[in-house]
Amino acid sequence: MLRAQDGVLHVLLWQRAREPHRNRWSLPGGRLRDDEDVETSIRRQLAEKVDVHKLSHVEQLSVFSEPARVPGRRTVATAFLGLVPADVDPEIPDDTAWHPLDGLPDTAFDHERITRAARDRLRAKLSYTNIGFALAPAEFTISELRRIYSAALGYEVAATNLQRVLTRRGALLPTGRTLPAGPAGGRPPALFRFTQPDLEITDPFAVLRPPAERT
Amino acid sequence: MLRAQDGVLHVLLWQRAREPHRNRWSLPGGRLRDDEDVETSIRRQLAEKVDVHKLSHVEQLSVFSEPARVPGRRTVATAFLGLVPADVDPEIPDDTAWHPLDGLPDTAFDHERITRAARDRLRAKLSYTNIGFALAPAEFTISELRRIYSAALGYEVAATNLQRVLTRRGALLPTGRTLPAGPAGGRPPALFRFTQPDLEITDPFAVLRPPAERT
Repeated sequence: MLRAQDGVLHVLLWQRAREPHRNRWSLPGGRLRDDEDVETSIRRQLAEKVDVHKLSHVEQLSVFSEPARVPGRRTVATAFLGLVPADVDPEIPDDTAWHPLDGLPDTAFDHERITRAARDRLRAKLSYTNIGFALAPAEFTISELRRIYSAALGYEVAATNLQRVLTRRGALLPTGRTLPAGPAGGRPPALFRFTQPDLEITDPFAVLRPPAERT
Repeated sequence: MLRAQDGVLHVLLWQRAREPHRNRWSLPGGRLRDDEDVETSIRRQLAEKVDVHKLSHVEQLSVFSEPARVPGRRTVATAFLGLVPADVDPEIPDDTAWHPLDGLPDTAFDHERITRAARDRLRAKLSYTNIGFALAPAEFTISELRRIYSAALGYEVAATNLQRVLTRRGALLPTGRTLPAGPAGGRPPALFRFTQPDLEITDPFAVLRPPAERT
């Protein structure tokens, strides 16, 4: 589960109380039950750590199946990418904490590799989808959004470019509202929202779309 | 394994000789061994059906894990999308055949659903990557490429649009060679190739890239 907060991308990890890899930090998860599919399973496992209604997006990431990835019995993991908006701070248990991705603690098994894969998937999707909706609050200033994109991408993004690209792609809408002006005065910053809160490819091969979709 | 041939997208299936679902058509695959990861496993399984060197692209598709998807012992499948170029016709065993996706025979288990998911992944990637390289011959005319894209996308694509978009994205290069002119005379058609034979996102969030990559 990833969240862009205070200009930094964080991952939710819990500290293992038992062997193997006691005291190391793990991604939330657990065994698949006989009566559930992997999507049901991950939502059940996550519900033990957080209120899953706080999750703005969940998708299958990849299977991790190195024979020796976990000591003992063969364990194949289906990893998911989950996102939480920047302004949501779900209650979490005492053994669980958000860690910055560029300062991870000692992690269990291949969970650092899985975390990096999740980050890379998020970065790729920021380039060709509207997935920013899942990291941002429901309404935000361009300056807030710039900070979130910069945190997720790992480099500074210009506010004017970001606004222009997302607007051109039809992903961003002005709400018509503004924040109160700051103590120094000046123009009060405008509030924006994403056009839709579901993942879509924002820049498809537009001219190749079937004629009916070209409206 | 998918291939765009004669203007139609095909999938490679084999006919089951034994129960369960005897005589129905299956995607190639099989059990994960203790000493291999899923990527090694799928290449081993495919090698039983075709010369895997003919595959131009392989990627993880998704996990299919409905508890009742296969009768008997619980079976979770990691599905892969494999692509074969239009001009490659690998030798296949007698129990195996290419089937058009819009006229599938009686399929085993959830393999029709997996096939549709593979088709949808391919279609999505045609919109934001250079994945056409994996469906096309090494060199091709725009008219041949148009036929391949139309087959994969499921609707007619205009040759001029296709050439313009792929060229603008830097995915397509003229080879400088032409085919011999047809019997009716006229300008001999130019031969093109893809710029690179590895998957890349061809239309990333360009203005958001780190400065060093903007060359």
